[in-house]
Amino acid sequence: MQGRSFLVDCGEATQMQLMRKRVNFHRLNHIFISHLHGDHYLGLMGLIFTMHLQGRVNDLHLYSHWGLDEIITTQLRYSHASLGYKIIFQPLEKGVREIIFEDDVLTVETIPLSHKVACSGFLFKERIKPRRIDKSRLPPGLLIQQIASLKKGENVYDEAGNIEYTNEELTLSPRKSRSYAYCSDTAFDKNIIDQIRNVNILYHEATFGEDEVDKAKETWHSTAKQAATMAQLAQVETLLLGHFSARYKDLAPLLDEAKSIFPNTALAIEGEEFTVQD
Amino acid sequence: MQGRSFLVDCGEATQMQLMRKRVNFHRLNHIFISHLHGDHYLGLMGLIFTMHLQGRVNDLHLYSHWGLDEIITTQLRYSHASLGYKIIFQPLEKGVREIIFEDDVLTVETIPLSHKVACSGFLFKERIKPRRIDKSRLPPGLLIQQIASLKKGENVYDEAGNIEYTNEELTLSPRKSRSYAYCSDTAFDKNIIDQIRNVNILYHEATFGEDEVDKAKETWHSTAKQAATMAQLAQVETLLLGHFSARYKDLAPLLDEAKSIFPNTALAIEGEEFTVQD
Repeated sequence: MQGRSFLVDCGEATQMQLMRKRVNFHRLNHIFISHLHGDHYLGLMGLIFTMHLQGRVNDLHLYSHWGLDEIITTQLRYSHASLGYKIIFQPLEKGVREIIFEDDVLTVETIPLSHKVACSGFLFKERIKPRRIDKSRLPPGLLIQQIASLKKGENVYDEAGNIEYTNEELTLSPRKSRSYAYCSDTAFDKNIIDQIRNVNILYHEATFGEDEVDKAKETWHSTAKQAATMAQLAQVETLLLGHFSARYKDLAPLLDEAKSIFPNTALAIEGEEFTVQD
Repeated sequence: MQGRSFLVDCGEATQMQLMRKRVNFHRLNHIFISHLHGDHYLGLMGLIFTMHLQGRVNDLHLYSHWGLDEIITTQLRYSHASLGYKIIFQPLEKGVREIIFEDDVLTVETIPLSHKVACSGFLFKERIKPRRIDKSRLPPGLLIQQIASLKKGENVYDEAGNIEYTNEELTLSPRKSRSYAYCSDTAFDKNIIDQIRNVNILYHEATFGEDEVDKAKETWHSTAKQAATMAQLAQVETLLLGHFSARYKDLAPLLDEAKSIFPNTALAIEGEEFTVQD
């Protein structure tokens, strides 16, 4: 997002996939782990070692529920490894919605999910963007400070303190702030709908089809239909389905099931790329 | 070996490679880990979880230096996983040569290696095989017990207790017992030559070329030339080189360097298969 790279969850062999995609590990400074089941974090230790071998010096920020810190330090201890960079661990609080990262362009907040172990989704939200100067109507001779004020939504004043131009006269509304919600793994849970309302892309797990709804409930997972229902209730733009059970060799029935409720649905297949549009 | 499957070391994504090779995980009951550097064990936890998901019930025997037990139990604890099978951990003793597995057809013993952390290679040796009955000379009417005695190298006696046929008359020498030595990671160390003498296949690490011999020494690794020297001194049949530094995009110079000393050398490239011949 705007030149920033984030990694959300890190299953086994993630580093191999990142290399295939030619992702520069040095630019990856924030890694968010939703929960401590192997398919969501087992690639992390290898990535940490490889970053070290590649000469990393900049801090690496890890966001996870408690336990990942112990898992990592135990392995560092037995490998007698002394990393050339710092890992800064930020524990997530279970069942709580909190902002865990913010800078001048975006915030990341946790989404409390319903799973067998402590589990959080992540909501990436661009901050409200500046109003855009309407160049066709911009009078000559404005100061750089006045233009900055216009972008913030303020008016232009003359030396006497009177309004010279209103903001509406010279600016257009800002570009829409984009948002992405990642929700894996979770049982069907309407409690998060308010939080993910209107996001551009909702990634939601769909481990099973609706014919396995009991199995989904029992294992704290969702069906494709349930994921689509979440997308519909939260009025998101696009739904991405993922985290399919290995039993589904053909994913078309899961996609069809979701599309019957929420048409703008796609499958998050390994290696595919999705862009959050302005 | 004779229907038995063993896994020696388990780097990240090993389970994916085993699946590609269609290895049946249920037949894999013994896993040997040489040392606790990530490239030698990071795929183990994923394999353990997948074995559980596949419904494994038979015991899994793990052989490793101390630490792997803690690394595994820490991760099981945080994933709240209760495996459907037992993991039986057998710690290896540092710097000691010991038999850690034996059954009726083979033994596995550790090879003390010289590395930065406690590290053991593994020597797989078939037991001495039975003498082979020479069917062209076998007289009719021998009892099944007498044939079994012949295979053990004994003579055939008549009812009075006198030699009826000597073993030499009716048998051929046994097939050669095969052996395989796995030596990774290690500095050049002649102390193990007696132990690996005459093995059919020696896998020896060759992290560097001889132009990096100082780097090899400093990092407790070997050069291709050093690996070949080990093969020559131990009079092995075949040398396999592996564990190449990522700096070598082209491995031909490493192979050439080794072949100039020990001609029967091959590169252990990922996915390749090698058979220990009778």
